[in-house]
Order: sequence, then structure tokens, then C-alpha cells
Amino acid sequence: MTYTLVLLRHGESEWNAKNLFTGWVDVPLSESGKAEATAGGELLAREGVLPDVVHTSLLRRAIMTANLSLDAADRHWIPVRRDWRLNERHYGALQGLDKAEIREKYGEEQFMAWRRSYDVPPPEIEFGTEFSQDQDPRYADLGDQLPHTECLKDVVERFLPYWEEGIKPDLRDGRTVLVAAHGNSLRALVKHLDGISDEEIAGLNIPTGQPLVYELDESFRPVEKGGRYLDPVAAKAAAEAVANQGKK
Amino acid sequence: MTYTLVLLRHGESEWNAKNLFTGWVDVPLSESGKAEATAGGELLAREGVLPDVVHTSLLRRAIMTANLSLDAADRHWIPVRRDWRLNERHYGALQGLDKAEIREKYGEEQFMAWRRSYDVPPPEIEFGTEFSQDQDPRYADLGDQLPHTECLKDVVERFLPYWEEGIKPDLRDGRTVLVAAHGNSLRALVKHLDGISDEEIAGLNIPTGQPLVYELDESFRPVEKGGRYLDPVAAKAAAEAVANQGKK
Repeated sequence: MTYTLVLLRHGESEWNAKNLFTGWVDVPLSESGKAEATAGGELLAREGVLPDVVHTSLLRRAIMTANLSLDAADRHWIPVRRDWRLNERHYGALQGLDKAEIREKYGEEQFMAWRRSYDVPPPEIEFGTEFSQDQDPRYADLGDQLPHTECLKDVVERFLPYWEEGIKPDLRDGRTVLVAAHGNSLRALVKHLDGISDEEIAGLNIPTGQPLVYELDESFRPVEKGGRYLDPVAAKAAAEAVANQGKK
Repeated sequence: MTYTLVLLRHGESEWNAKNLFTGWVDVPLSESGKAEATAGGELLAREGVLPDVVHTSLLRRAIMTANLSLDAADRHWIPVRRDWRLNERHYGALQGLDKAEIREKYGEEQFMAWRRSYDVPPPEIEFGTEFSQDQDPRYADLGDQLPHTECLKDVVERFLPYWEEGIKPDLRDGRTVLVAAHGNSLRALVKHLDGISDEEIAGLNIPTGQPLVYELDESFRPVEKGGRYLDPVAAKAAAEAVANQGKK
């Protein structure tokens, strides 16, 4: 008896295409990102990995990814759960800024620290400014928990309660669970599942639009470390593309 | 203190466009139906009627309508609930058949009885045939409740428990509730809310893609009988178009 967990990172958004830091800014998928979501769902159907319930963040690029992939897999009718704890990392004051410009202005080392270090958050965003979410009704209940910025460590900390109380109960019920989310909330989950160290997680890139399947034992430990991509060749190519983001 | 309930009937599906009886067959929206859903969501946003939770059937044309309209209203992130009790009326053995051909073969009177009478169901569908849902995993838990055919009276009876146990609790919590569903499941709801007789309900046509807002008092009675369309002129024209369906 194992539990089946499927991770799906959303595909290209309009701001990925423009090379801007996004974070909690709620941008839509690009046409290319929509096609990735549909292809991901077709792959689930072809491989017979059929979700019984889906968990998404509160951001439209993950929600659209879930909607499109589930429709393609003929599983659009399953129960839906959403939680802010699955959101992308909050990018602080960098939200809305051009990645290449930030790289040039602050240098490679600082740029990579903000993007890839475990515990160095970007500068805090000022509430009330254009790309802050402090007036967004979907976060009205968060109070002091609404972040001004986040490093990956912060994401791990705010994500884990949802893993315990939101996702594990569905797995325990024997449901195949799809988590449609973001690069960093999924890295937080994979770090936890595979026991990856704070140092090693920097090197882990999760490809977009590629369903990643974990079979978990009764203690929620992966039967196979790192899980299994349904299309390993495409996943490897997509992970390399992600690693090269922000390079001109 | 009133409760706010918003009804939204899905727009044109690929089979509406082809003039086929659909019922529980899970066909997608046409391009025109997608545009109706988006326009309905834009209208919600413009009028400031912002759903806090959405209820849909298990059929893709209602689910897509919810997804597209909520995205257009910037409410894609609200909680989602789905239930088979919001499904369209099951059209029995007529599912998949051409409306104009059925009208010609059986005559105007029988055709209208199947379409509009309160208690005359179409002939039963045979399980195992092309347009039956007896093998569909989304209905696996229904057992004996899976219909072979339904008249509107049957829809009222299977819908009401969900009104009581699924929808009313959200209204009681003070949430603005969107119900994205079908011609006949919404007629069942409107019949109940407005206290329409079994005879009079035949004449009621709910237009597609037009948000219909009911303010309900603490006993869940409409403050204004019939509710209020956000765009009354467009709703009247759309209701007349629905009434003419099936005429050549």
C-alpha cells in the first residue's frame, strides 16, 4: 500500500516570458504556458495517473494549470482545494522588476543569493505599492502572516502546516493527489520529502508542465528518492531551461 | 441582513450548437459559450457582485463556465464545491439524438412533453450504451441513485438535499454564493425559491450566461420574486432565444 502524490509546476506565465520577478503578483499563463498545462494533463491521462483531488495555490497561473490539465485528463470534476500556503515565494521588493536588470545592477553573486540561497530574502516590499498584495481580498484573513518578502526557508515553514493538515489527510484517504503549484513551493515540498539539505536544495530545478509522481510509504517517505517524471526526457530538458532563467 | 445568491447558466455547448439532446453527456462549451462565460464574469465584476464561493455540477460545461467567469471577475481563487445534484436533467434515451429529428418523428406534443412537462420523463437510457454514464468514475458512488432518465420533478427531488446541506450553509455564513449550473437544475432552484407551481414552471426560461442575483431573507425567501438580472435587456433577449430552441 503506497500513497500517490503528483506535483505539477505551472508553465510559462506572461511575466516569465518578459523575464520579470513575479512572486505573488497574479499574472496569467502565456499561450505557451496554457499549452504546457494541457500537455501535462494529456500525459497524466496517457499514463493512467488520474488525480482524485487537486490542491492549488491562490494564484491564477497555478489555478489555470490545474483547470487545463485536469480538463485534458478528463478529471475536471474532482474536488478542488486552494490555499495561500502553496503560493510562490514572495519576492519582496523585486516583484515586478526585470531579472536581467537586477542581475546587472547588483551583480551575479547578489542576484544568485536572492534567487537560490536558502535563507537570504530579497529586500522587503513596501505595503501600498503597486506590486504588494496587502489590499488583496484573498489574503484578508492572513493578518500578520502576510509576507513582506520570503526566502526559501520561509516558504518551507509556511508550507509545512498545509502539507500536514491539508494534503496528508487526502493521501491517507487513499486519494491520488495532484498539487498544482510553483517552483519554490514545490521545491519546499520536495526538500521535505527527499530530505534534501539546505545547501543542496539550491541545485534543484523543477521543470514546468512535467508531472512528477511520488509513491510514498505509510510514513510518507518516497519509495524512490526524487520521484519519477512521466516523461523523463522532456523533464530533463525543461529543468535545464529553468536553470538558465535570468541569463541573457 | 440578506443572503446573496447568484445563478449562472452555462452558455452554448458544442451540442447546443448542433441541436442535440445533451443531458449528462459531458460536452465542452463552444467558443461562443466560452465568450458568454467570460462576459458573465465581467458583468459580475462591473456590478461589484463578487462571489466568495462557487458551486458547480460535475459537467465540464458548467465547470468551464465557473472557471472562465471567475477568472474574468478576478475571483478565480475562491473555494470550489462540486456535486452531481447540480447536473443537468438526465435526458434518458434521447441523449445524443437530434432535437429536430425527435420533434419530427414523435410530433410537437410528445416533443414538448419531454422538454417541458413537469413529470413526463423521456424513455430510459440503456446502461452500457454510448451515451450512458454508468461506467463513468465520477458517478461511481451513486449506486441506485444514478438516473436512467429524469423529468423536472426528479431534478427538483435530487437537487433539494444539496440546496439544504450544500448551499444554504455557505449563505448562512454570509458568503456570496455563485451556482454555475444548467437550465433544468437552475429551474428546479428557481421553482423552489419563488414558489412556482408545477404548471407554471413550464413557461420559465433561464437565459444562458446572464448572472441572476437573488437577495434572500433569513428564511431564504427572495426579497424580490424572480430575482434581478444584472443586465435585464440582454437577459430578456437570451431567454427568448432559449424558448425557441428546437424550432427549425
